[in-house]
This record gives sequence, structure tokens and C-alpha cells, in this order.
Amino acid sequence: MCRWLAYSGSPLLLEELLYKPQHSLIDQSLHATLGPHTTNGDGFGVGWYAEGEAPALYKGTDPAWNDRNLRELSQHIRSGLIFAHVRASTGTPIQQSNCHPFRHGKWLWMHNGQIAEFPKLKRELVMAVDPSLYPHIEGSADSEVFFFLALTFGLEENPPRAVERAVAFIEKIARDFGVPHPMRMSVAVSNGETVWAFRYASIGTPPSLFFSTRVGTLREQFPEVPAFQALSDEARLIVSEPLGERVGAWNEVPESTCGVVRTGEDELRPFCPTAAA
Amino acid sequence: MCRWLAYSGSPLLLEELLYKPQHSLIDQSLHATLGPHTTNGDGFGVGWYAEGEAPALYKGTDPAWNDRNLRELSQHIRSGLIFAHVRASTGTPIQQSNCHPFRHGKWLWMHNGQIAEFPKLKRELVMAVDPSLYPHIEGSADSEVFFFLALTFGLEENPPRAVERAVAFIEKIARDFGVPHPMRMSVAVSNGETVWAFRYASIGTPPSLFFSTRVGTLREQFPEVPAFQALSDEARLIVSEPLGERVGAWNEVPESTCGVVRTGEDELRPFCPTAAA
Amino acid sequence: MCRWLAYSGSPLLLEELLYKPQHSLIDQSLHATLGPHTTNGDGFGVGWYAEGEAPALYKGTDPAWNDRNLRELSQHIRSGLIFAHVRASTGTPIQQSNCHPFRHGKWLWMHNGQIAEFPKLKRELVMAVDPSLYPHIEGSADSEVFFFLALTFGLEENPPRAVERAVAFIEKIARDFGVPHPMRMSVAVSNGETVWAFRYASIGTPPSLFFSTRVGTLREQFPEVPAFQALSDEARLIVSEPLGERVGAWNEVPESTCGVVRTGEDELRPFCPTAAA
Amino acid sequence: MCRWLAYSGSPLLLEELLYKPQHSLIDQSLHATLGPHTTNGDGFGVGWYAEGEAPALYKGTDPAWNDRNLRELSQHIRSGLIFAHVRASTGTPIQQSNCHPFRHGKWLWMHNGQIAEFPKLKRELVMAVDPSLYPHIEGSADSEVFFFLALTFGLEENPPRAVERAVAFIEKIARDFGVPHPMRMSVAVSNGETVWAFRYASIGTPPSLFFSTRVGTLREQFPEVPAFQALSDEARLIVSEPLGERVGAWNEVPESTCGVVRTGEDELRPFCPTAAA
Repeated sequence: MCRWLAYSGSPLLLEELLYKPQHSLIDQSLHATLGPHTTNGDGFGVGWYAEGEAPALYKGTDPAWNDRNLRELSQHIRSGLIFAHVRASTGTPIQQSNCHPFRHGKWLWMHNGQIAEFPKLKRELVMAVDPSLYPHIEGSADSEVFFFLALTFGLEENPPRAVERAVAFIEKIARDFGVPHPMRMSVAVSNGETVWAFRYASIGTPPSLFFSTRVGTLREQFPEVPAFQALSDEARLIVSEPLGERVGAWNEVPESTCGVVRTGEDELRPFCPTAAA
Repeated sequence: MCRWLAYSGSPLLLEELLYKPQHSLIDQSLHATLGPHTTNGDGFGVGWYAEGEAPALYKGTDPAWNDRNLRELSQHIRSGLIFAHVRASTGTPIQQSNCHPFRHGKWLWMHNGQIAEFPKLKRELVMAVDPSLYPHIEGSADSEVFFFLALTFGLEENPPRAVERAVAFIEKIARDFGVPHPMRMSVAVSNGETVWAFRYASIGTPPSLFFSTRVGTLREQFPEVPAFQALSDEARLIVSEPLGERVGAWNEVPESTCGVVRTGEDELRPFCPTAAA
Repeated sequence: MCRWLAYSGSPLLLEELLYKPQHSLIDQSLHATLGPHTTNGDGFGVGWYAEGEAPALYKGTDPAWNDRNLRELSQHIRSGLIFAHVRASTGTPIQQSNCHPFRHGKWLWMHNGQIAEFPKLKRELVMAVDPSLYPHIEGSADSEVFFFLALTFGLEENPPRAVERAVAFIEKIARDFGVPHPMRMSVAVSNGETVWAFRYASIGTPPSLFFSTRVGTLREQFPEVPAFQALSDEARLIVSEPLGERVGAWNEVPESTCGVVRTGEDELRPFCPTAAA
Repeated sequence: MCRWLAYSGSPLLLEELLYKPQHSLIDQSLHATLGPHTTNGDGFGVGWYAEGEAPALYKGTDPAWNDRNLRELSQHIRSGLIFAHVRASTGTPIQQSNCHPFRHGKWLWMHNGQIAEFPKLKRELVMAVDPSLYPHIEGSADSEVFFFLALTFGLEENPPRAVERAVAFIEKIARDFGVPHPMRMSVAVSNGETVWAFRYASIGTPPSLFFSTRVGTLREQFPEVPAFQALSDEARLIVSEPLGERVGAWNEVPESTCGVVRTGEDELRPFCPTAAA
């Protein structure tokens, strides 16, 4: 069911995050320990903010552990805001247009989870996407439709509210179609300055989600990643699954929570899907 | 803008059609002479009817001329009703779900052409697809949406009428959105017994389309294809572009025409898009 | 480190072997339980004997569990002698020319295992391949070089002796280069009539290998595979890892053993690598 | 038979060279006008020098015109020394390990052309590669073996002499095997500071090769490439096929010539394959 990683802080080479840590995201594509899938080999994607306002993307359908270009590029691409995702498909085809992160303008979006019985609900959900946004939907994945619903509900103005409204809408449509608890999600979204992360499920335990706070402990925990020694206190990692030992450097994001990472004070706030604007 | 081939007759190995003729479909993927594209290297697909009622598919995103598996399989797959297509994309991504033929139940569909300004019209067209059919749309190509509109308008009951109604609908929506002459098409569709081929454009010359009649001339024209010697008089080839010299063995399908190939008498009939059922 | 399967018996559709059993080879590509790798997602290949003398091949670099064409083709390809392999690379690139089975004329070859420190030994081993055979080496995998050494040492005349001589040669070269125990192998090779299977390691436990004997138990064990009900007593499966419960239907091939499956009596015989012809 | 481009000068984004010129390399992958192949869709590769001493590589097997990642990356990768190549295979498989440029340490190598009857000569040529270099050969292409012969004959000390000796050796072996005029080549090689380009054929006209000199004319010729306006006089392009009109900005490299591009004075010198060191 996918693994992802979001980084915000001083610029790093991609390889510091994707390859060097002991239980890196690339390692998790083959040996994930949390979640239902050991293997997340149905494609991958990396997005990063650097030149200009729109983020760059590199996505592929090969298992991440095999992509030599990714390894090569990771030694040359440096950024202070990075999204990376390895995919385990929940049914939709393996193709680049179904890989995360998804991009719209300056926004990047990643999702781990599922909209239950998506084929049954898809038409209603897609029809609710704003007609001006609809032509930008490229693939067939539930995660992408979820993104475009969030955009429709005002992601560019107020991301937490927009995602709450999108989830409320999905839950309502699902109820109409006899699917009682459709949503399992950990989501990351960014506009290049702030990162918002969400953890929620309609019922039961949502997919795992962790964030790093004590950068000092991060440096201790990862002697094999020299670049971590240079991290500022502003540096934050948000991950589906910790990149190493969980003690100290990783804090679980509570269920039904939205985390906000920005310059200055971060926050955790309740996440309550409702339809109200 | 794609090349395709439909064969109906006594069973042949795929390679007799795809590789052996001098200007075979694989040759056309690299050296097409009619149409705007010399190269049709944006993927390919083959469908064939054999075991059971539902046709089999083999589709790939590599250029057809490079796919070693296709060459290999062609030496082992035999069928009396074969659809084959090499793609030149008109804008949608290169992925298996955008390769032809498209399949629904026992139906196969191929299209050469384009719906002009498709991103502008897509939402209206897709919303008109019957809700029960909508979840079966896998890709993002105009050709696939066209197929599902034909299914919505009764393809399984009366293919020529269904395609006329679908084209009429597309032309109407296009007019509503300020796109005066949207449709260029040659189409092949089959249910495993009959093959229907269509040639039409809203304005101007539609994509090329030819059919073979005099099988005797087909045998003369292709000494390099021994299997053609064994063809019965029922054997028919319908092609975007002739597989060899045009004299005698190939007849152009007139514009605004539907051709019907079945056991017994074939026919050519006018193709008139109207909304009437 | 790969999983493979060889079948000899009355013709079956590929899907009966690749998909239908509970712990099928496709399942093993994602959830192997024996051997060091849970995941064998570095490509796959299928070879089968049908039309003509030379076997057909279908190979791909995608993880087997994702290849839709393989699933599709498996429903239409029928054969009485089938080789199938899912790959976990031991270092060489992921490309079709490094996928098994390898083919030369009417011979198919699959290998699970490794030649230790292959880069160090490769030049000596490759130079020992008969010059007339050398141009047929397509890839860079140790398994393929091993095959061509076996061909050089007379595979086409006496397969067990040829493989013994090839292994003895590899072990000698390895000793010369300071690599004491280079070989771990389970191998299957066939000429379309007989299947030879080998299990051996220079030291320690070789990769797992099992064969089916009591077809009656095979039928009991796989109620979900209707085609097994029709199997003759001649039917044999040789597998890296059992396709279901191990009780009764599966017998472990002893270490340092060559198994021979042919019409009439099968045999197990000692496998003793020596240089003698 | 491939098209390639080498750039040396002030840092540019890859897209300035690969996409923006009217008859860019990507355009040449689909519409080459010189050479025997209109289409060069059998893979591509880009190498560039930036961070550190070893150049970076991005290679793929898709047709260059379809690779969305290449287009994306080109907007973010900047370098003052760039090699780019689009491939038309002369027989060896389509796989990343057969795409150019080839890399060894800080050296990059691209080749347009062919060693005639390469399968017949391959073993002798490969055996002549220095044993310490042999394990670094990854693919099966003649171009790569040619590179490793040049390395064997002292590329790192004296590139022009090394390439002359390598060609002389290939011609000798070819004569021994009854292949009279084996070599057709345009080659580019670099160590990150200097670029050497070669144009030669054993007989007849070698593949085309051009270099730019008058940067002023380059600026006039490419108004659609704003970055060219900022080029220093040191900037040089060496190309299989001009990126636009040939008048003024492009000079043909004479046959049997080696061009050297470095800071300060460039030179053209005779290229005479002889075995002497």
C-alpha cells in the first residue's frame, strides 16, 4: 500500500534520503516492515522544488530498487523540499500517469491508502471535480482523483479545510453507494513552502505516519548519512515508515491529525472531515 | 496518426500478416507512406479471436519494430480474426491502457484519427458514457472514449447505427464547445464473427482505408507470404495502408462509408452520423 | 535468487501452472518463502515447446506479478513442456537478455543460484566458450555463460556429463582466482523431449529443488486447478519451491543430484562435477 | 544509424540543446534528414559533467521523443559539457546497457556508425580488451567494445593515438576474418575538459559530422533559443546533423579527421589509423 517520504529543510542531495539511510525508502520498496505489503514495486516517483516555482518530477514504472537512472540522478539533484513515493498498486494499472507524486501548478501530492470500492464510486467522484480541472487528470488512480477533489474544494487557499471537505465528500458518496467506510489515508501535500501531512481513516487504524523532531537525535541515529550532520533545526522528515530505529528521532502522527511543517513553529491539529466550507 | 489492419478468414499465424508482407504493418510502424506520420512508434497492440468467446490481447508501449516478444509470439499465435494496430499518439500518454485494440467483452475496437480539441470536450463525452460502462474505461485516449460512446449507443445491438449515433453526438458536443469539425476516423470493430469498418471525417479527407477483394490477386501480389496461397475466397484484409502494391488487390473504402465483412456477401453502405436511434 | 518451474506432461494452458495454484510461481515472485529473497521482481520468462522443434520464448523485465500480457497470454498458450522463471538479480542488469530461460536451438536452460565473484572469473569462463557458440551469448548474466559452457562441453550429446564438466571447469577457474567455492545451483535444461534437473553447491546447502511424483496427490492438493484432474501419471512438475503444501505431492531433490524426466521411467542419479569427458 | 551532439562552453540547461532548436536532437530522433535512418527510436542517453569528476548519465530504451522524464529533467539539469545520443540499433538488443554515451571513470564516449559483421569479429576484439577493463563491459554493442579497445590502447593518455590504434586493430582483425572495410564512424569522447571528435570510414563516405565555429552566426540562426544569446565565443557544438540551417554556423568535419575542442585554440588534425604506439 505504498511508502512515502517528505523532506523540508536545508538542501540535500536526493541520495541522502533515498539511498543512504539504513532503512531508506528504496530499501522500503523491497523490505517494508509496517503496512500490509513487504514489496512496493509498482512504480515510484520523486518531486522536488528548485529552479522556478513549479516542482520537477521524475517518475517510473520499474521497481525503485532497480531503476539505475534514479540512483544516478539522486547523486546530482539537490533540493530543500523533496517528495518521494514507492507504489504498491491497489488495482489500477502500472503506468507513469498513476505514479505519485501528482503535480498541479506548484502543488505536489502523495497518498498512501485507498478509497474502497473505487470503481463503484469513481464516476460520481470524478464528476464532482471542477470542469476546469478535469482535463488535467491524467491517470486512473484513486489517489489522483482525491487530489483533484481537494483542488476543487480549495486546496490552493486552505489545504487542511480542502482535504477535510474532500474526504467528507468521498465518505458521503460512498454511503450513497453502500460503501460504509471508504477512506484510508496518509497524505502529503506542498506548495513549495509549507508541507501539510494528514493521517486518517474512516474506521480502524489508518496507514502509519511518523515525523522527525529532534534533529539532534536524527544526527545520532544516522552516522551513515554525513549530510544529516549539517541539518539545521528546521529540517523535518515525514515518513510512512521510519528510516531507522524508532526510538527518539521519530514521533507517530496521531490518527485524525493534520501536521503542518513551515519555517518557524510546526503544528499538529485535529483533522475532521466535514462538508462545511 | 496510427496504422491498423483487420483480417478475417481461414486461420493464419500472426507473422503472416505482421511481418512477412513487404510493406507489413511492422514495416509501416517505421516507414508509413500514407498519412502524416512516417513513424508510428508510440506503442502497438494485437487482438485475436481463438479459444473461447472473448478475444485475447497483446499490447505494448515499445515501438512495434523493436518488440522481440511480438515477433516471437507471432510465430505461434494462429487465428481467423485478427486486429493489429501501431500507434502515433495525438497527445495522450504512451501507456498500455492507451494502446489499441480496446476490448469490451467479445468486442474489439481500433481507431485511426482524432477527436479535435479532445481535452476541451472530454468531460462532456465521458459523462455521456453509460454509468455501468464508465468503470471499464482504463486509459485517457479519445479513441477509447469513442468506443465507450459507441457501446452506450447500442454497439452490441446494431454497430453501424451505434457508431453513427456516437459520431453525431461527438459532433454536437463539439459544436456546443466551438469546435466545428471534430472527427477524423477510420475504425474497425468486431464481435468475433463480423467485422465492421468505417471511414469518415467531419470535413475534408478522412484517413486512408483499403480492403482486399480479389483473393486471387492477393496471392499473386504476395509471393513472399506462402500462407496467402492457402487463403479461401472468404479471406479479407482491411488496412489503413496497403501491404504492397495497390494495383488490383486493394480497393479504397469510399469516404462516409461503412464496410461489413461476414461469411457470405460483404457490403459497403453509406455512413451518416445522425442522433436518431 | 530466483524461482523456477518446469512442467512435462499432457498439454496445459500456462495459466494452470503460473496463476492458478495457491502458491503459484507468480505468487512466488512476490511472496517466496524458501530462499533468501521474498521478492523475485527483476524480470521473468516463459519458454514452451509446441509448433516446430525450437521452443518459443516470452520474456520481460517487469515484475511478473504486474505483467498483464503474461496473464493474458497464459490463457491462450498450451504446451506439454513448459519452463517458467522469475528473477532476483545477483548483480547483472535488468534487461530481457538477462532473463531466463535461455535458448539455443531446441534447448532451454534455467538456473537459480550464482557463480560467486563472477566479474573476477567472467573473462576466463567466456574465453572457454567454443568460438562458434560465442556470438550467441546475448546478455551479461552468469547463468547464460554457464549455459554456454555446458553447450561447449557437449550438452547436446550428454547433458549430465556436460553440466558436470562445466561445473568442474568453473570450480577450477575459481580456485585459480582465489574463489574457493563458487557454485550454487538448481538448473533445468530440456531439448523438448527430456527434462534434466540438477541440484548442487560447491559447499553448503544448494538452492531448494522439489519434484512431484504421486500425481494422485497432486490432484488432491490442488482442487483450485481443474486441469490437474486431467493429468496423466506421466505428468511431472519440478520446482524451486512447492506450489502448495509440501506433504505428499512434493519430494526434495537430494543435494548433488541430477533428475531425469522422460517418457517411461524417471531417474535420480548422482551429480559429480569432474573434468573428465 | 544514430545521431549525437556534444556541447562544450558556458553552462546551459539540457533543454536548450535537446528541445529548443528547430531541428533539435529530439526532433532528429523522429525526423533525421542525413544518414540512412529517419527514425532513431531505439533508445537514447545523455551524459553531463557537473558535480565531482565523474560525469552523470541518464539513459533509456524508449524513443527519445516519448520520454517525459527526459523532457522534465532537461529543464533542471545544467552543464558546460554535455553529450547526447539517440540510437538506431545496428542489430544488438534494445537495452540501457547498449545506449550511449558509455562511461568509464571520467570518460564519456559516443559513436555513430558500425563495425561490419561484428558478430564474426566480436570474440577476437573482446579478447584484446585489457583483462582489467573487461569486467566493465556491460552490454553487447560494437560501440562499447570499440570504446574499451580505445581504453586498452591508451585513451586516458593520448586519445587521438588510442583511437587510431583501436581502429587499426579492428581493421586488422577484420582483414583476418575476411571483412575488408569494417569501420564507419563518427565518435565523440571527453574527459570533462577536452572534447575529441573523429570522422572516418575504412572505405567510402563516413557518417556526417559538423562543428560550429562562428558563435555570432549561431546566435543569429537560433532566435528560438534565448540561451544561445549568452554563449561565449568558447562555446562549441559538434553534431551528427546540424540543428538548423547549415549556412554559416556549421562546418563539416573533413573525412579522416580528428577535431579537438578545448579552452583556447581548437584544432583539426589528420586521423590515420596505424598500429604503432
